[in-house]
Amino acid sequence: MMDIQKIIVVSPMIKELKAYIEHENLDKEIRYVTEDMLTEKELDWADAFCGFQIKKAADYSKVKWVHSLGAGVDGFLYNQNWNENVLLTRTVCSFGQRIGEYCLSYILRDSQNHQAFASQQEEKVWKEKTPVLLSEKTAVIYGTGEIGTKVAEILSGFGMKVYGISLSGKQKPGFEKVIAVDASFSILKEADYVINTLPLTDKTADLFNKELFNQTSNIGLINVGRGGSVVEEDLIRAMEMEQVRFAVLDVFQEEPLPTSHPFWEHPGITVTPHISAVTTAKEAVDCFVTTLDKVEKEQYLANEVDVRKGY
Amino acid sequence: MMDIQKIIVVSPMIKELKAYIEHENLDKEIRYVTEDMLTEKELDWADAFCGFQIKKAADYSKVKWVHSLGAGVDGFLYNQNWNENVLLTRTVCSFGQRIGEYCLSYILRDSQNHQAFASQQEEKVWKEKTPVLLSEKTAVIYGTGEIGTKVAEILSGFGMKVYGISLSGKQKPGFEKVIAVDASFSILKEADYVINTLPLTDKTADLFNKELFNQTSNIGLINVGRGGSVVEEDLIRAMEMEQVRFAVLDVFQEEPLPTSHPFWEHPGITVTPHISAVTTAKEAVDCFVTTLDKVEKEQYLANEVDVRKGY
Repeated sequence: MMDIQKIIVVSPMIKELKAYIEHENLDKEIRYVTEDMLTEKELDWADAFCGFQIKKAADYSKVKWVHSLGAGVDGFLYNQNWNENVLLTRTVCSFGQRIGEYCLSYILRDSQNHQAFASQQEEKVWKEKTPVLLSEKTAVIYGTGEIGTKVAEILSGFGMKVYGISLSGKQKPGFEKVIAVDASFSILKEADYVINTLPLTDKTADLFNKELFNQTSNIGLINVGRGGSVVEEDLIRAMEMEQVRFAVLDVFQEEPLPTSHPFWEHPGITVTPHISAVTTAKEAVDCFVTTLDKVEKEQYLANEVDVRKGY
Repeated sequence: MMDIQKIIVVSPMIKELKAYIEHENLDKEIRYVTEDMLTEKELDWADAFCGFQIKKAADYSKVKWVHSLGAGVDGFLYNQNWNENVLLTRTVCSFGQRIGEYCLSYILRDSQNHQAFASQQEEKVWKEKTPVLLSEKTAVIYGTGEIGTKVAEILSGFGMKVYGISLSGKQKPGFEKVIAVDASFSILKEADYVINTLPLTDKTADLFNKELFNQTSNIGLINVGRGGSVVEEDLIRAMEMEQVRFAVLDVFQEEPLPTSHPFWEHPGITVTPHISAVTTAKEAVDCFVTTLDKVEKEQYLANEVDVRKGY
């Protein structure tokens, strides 16, 4: 049994987290601090750390358990050394559904011609442009984990043809077919929409580059994974070359996206402020409390991170 | 057995219809004319008429069977006398799915804050605004026929609470509850979205009026039924009073919507050019050919119109 008595919770939304956690009446000592207020002292004191990311300078190997308040853990692992004795878990809740509705909303915006009709309305023009049923479209989803699978399930529910791309190429239900990333170029020619749900690791950094876009034709690209997987200048080139027709980006190399960045003004790019899979405080606390209970009882943790794979 | 040998097909898209019909190698005499070219001579000649609407002056009681190329038959029945000896059928194909994707696209545009993020992007503002899951929303659908039921099925698939309103109030699967239109005001207070799929009849004309909107609070209204069901000045008043937050209108009292109409410039109103349930020529011909076969064999017609009810 892992003994967890002292927990440090670090977040910009500590007020809300505190209210929900106190409601649970946990028999633990818990300290709440904002990210800029965290010092080594709290880490010396704590058995467990719960937060969104890690400060590179801080030594987290002092705690027994780190729980990520987000689904992505690249803020803990990517380009950092992790002490493998420290257990790392992550928040898994309604991300799949949230990201699914995000992706579907922008696919439907396209298939239902929202932008064309909005332009026509400005000009008071009445001109038919028949929407296309989703069943006539094909999507390629990078990532066949919990999130990618949920997105596939939602899209294939409308009769869309949905291919999955994963590192292993292992078949998964909900996908027409899953293909290993090394052999994925062949399928890209069929894609109307390409969705990235991959975590950021050494293997997925810069994956969406010139070579990949050279395989696509007029796709809609949706990135709900990580900004580091897309080579930004290659995306802009691909749009000039009509390899990418539009891009909906929720994640970026640098966030918030700098005001000077060309994406803001690009007519084919939609920028959203990393909201496709927001963890609400309530969901984060539910997941944290459930995980804490399992950690203490040393039960199987579906949300344990494989720190070598990075997700 | 009903003997149908001579058919007159009237449509603005006769070229496409002709190509698909000729492909079927029907052993019939068929004449194709555009709407402005139709004369009494063709009606004297024909056993059957196939088209989108009827000219008031024309005497259609000469034919045995009229087939509507659209789903709505108010162009044949509303404010017109119909000879009950003439069989009336209508096109039923992928309308439910098409209208479902149309409605869902605008509900997701709202729940995913598309317009807010587009405004922020214009200002280069990075500001979170958490999308709301559809499972937290409630829809009220007027009309529980084939189309309303399909829309309900799609929305409730996302965990939305969906109420139906029909003339009879008869319960139908896919709806949390179906309520008779006369008792429908009670449920409107719960609605986030109200969708009209009703046909235009004496009972549904002007149904969405001041009294109805007095029951709603900040709803999104989607009209994919008929423009004649909405009192246009009452809708504008309801938007001023925050009873209606936004309206997405695919149908209007007058179509095309006149350039002088205030809907075009209203910031809360989205105008689309009657495209939510477009019949493609292929689908129209498929439905027509199937119906023709059943008419000749006097088989049960699921798409026969009850001319007294008007749908």
